[in-house]
Amino acid sequence: MQVWALDGIAEVAAGDDLATIIGDALAADAEGVVDGDILVVTSKIVSKAEGRQLAASDREDAITAETVRVVAVRGTTRIVENRLGVVGAAAGVDASNTPEGTILLLPIDPDASARALCAALRERFGVRLGIVVSDTLGRAWRIGQTDIAIGAAGMRVVDDLRGETDAQGRPLVVTVPVVADEIASAGDLVKGKATGRPVAVVRGLSRYVTDEIDTPGARTLPRTGEHDMFRLGTDEAIGMGRQVGYADGFAAGRASRD
Amino acid sequence: MQVWALDGIAEVAAGDDLATIIGDALAADAEGVVDGDILVVTSKIVSKAEGRQLAASDREDAITAETVRVVAVRGTTRIVENRLGVVGAAAGVDASNTPEGTILLLPIDPDASARALCAALRERFGVRLGIVVSDTLGRAWRIGQTDIAIGAAGMRVVDDLRGETDAQGRPLVVTVPVVADEIASAGDLVKGKATGRPVAVVRGLSRYVTDEIDTPGARTLPRTGEHDMFRLGTDEAIGMGRQVGYADGFAAGRASRD
Repeated sequence: MQVWALDGIAEVAAGDDLATIIGDALAADAEGVVDGDILVVTSKIVSKAEGRQLAASDREDAITAETVRVVAVRGTTRIVENRLGVVGAAAGVDASNTPEGTILLLPIDPDASARALCAALRERFGVRLGIVVSDTLGRAWRIGQTDIAIGAAGMRVVDDLRGETDAQGRPLVVTVPVVADEIASAGDLVKGKATGRPVAVVRGLSRYVTDEIDTPGARTLPRTGEHDMFRLGTDEAIGMGRQVGYADGFAAGRASRD
Repeated sequence: MQVWALDGIAEVAAGDDLATIIGDALAADAEGVVDGDILVVTSKIVSKAEGRQLAASDREDAITAETVRVVAVRGTTRIVENRLGVVGAAAGVDASNTPEGTILLLPIDPDASARALCAALRERFGVRLGIVVSDTLGRAWRIGQTDIAIGAAGMRVVDDLRGETDAQGRPLVVTVPVVADEIASAGDLVKGKATGRPVAVVRGLSRYVTDEIDTPGARTLPRTGEHDMFRLGTDEAIGMGRQVGYADGFAAGRASRD
């Protein structure tokens, strides 16, 4: 597997045609384009092309607007589920690598953005390309961030090993490597955050690239709802339990005196 | 960045000298060894070399023994903090790619294992190598698994961008990419789970490789204790809150009748 960042992508502005910009950078790249290449595109430039920029003074309101559910709050940190189903801080509203005084919302529909990019670039280069739209996300129980996939097209996002066997011939029953997230992380290692190189090319994983463009996208990766064992922060859940318990206890306490 | 899996590593057994086994595979590799290469070593072979294999019938007891704190339980799934500070299912006790009827515990001290490997391989090849010991881990709020670092030596595990600036010259205040986890994920993309190739080489990230071997390891990556907003599963926390609330409410209910 080879992973490198594309040079020559200038600052992206609202209304820019991202497929042309990335296509031109690809066309100029010495490595060329090969069937099965996967492009990791930083969501920030997708957002910029979509005009998702707001004034920084609107940040708190923007986080609220992008939030479908508050998971936990501590101090000024809000862990929320955003429109895309992704649970993280600040709903993905971002203030780095944006012009001074502005913030950036996540793309409207990153899977759709990935499909559009995938279609345009496959058409232009005549080969099967996969697209990952990446974002930087914190994690429960681990410090810092890694890059993950919030959009994908033209590729499988998971390598479902259920049904396959390990080297001893036994079923790999519960293993579902989320290759789209791992590819986003690999891309981050070459793009960096401070270098202004927002697109990486990953070569050597053509086994995940599909003939179809419209594949199950990154929207299938969040796990929320009934399977989510961490739908609330611990303090929030204890507080909710206390309220219910208090009401039950109060009624029982009164009754105990009858 | 180039990432590939080493061929020629046979099944590892208790007492095997892993540094020699990996070193021989490296020496036989057509790509050679270059200063700044990072090796991603699947924790499974470290465990096997350390004799961490148990009978499968001991699985539940083994999970209990490896657990320092239960975070959440649902059905037969136990999410726990293990000895290494890592929060995940089954405390890292593994039943895939182990001989029939056996399970495998995590290495005793993966950072120490990484340091030992790092020292031996640097000595043999005369260049600075970095080591990541990887494991496969599920995540809150996302399906499936990605590989992360549970051991590291001879390299920086995070790329601390605090103090650096973005392309607009503004401080990247909260961004701490956990490169050791991203490198583990990149390694997983070439090692695979079913192929019997447990070691990957990552070339092109020498900026993270240090002169020192004894660097802050993967033990610095878990976030537990007071900064952990998800120290309990939601159901567990609600249950705890209800008990406290009930006692308070009961007392208040009794008092209300006085």
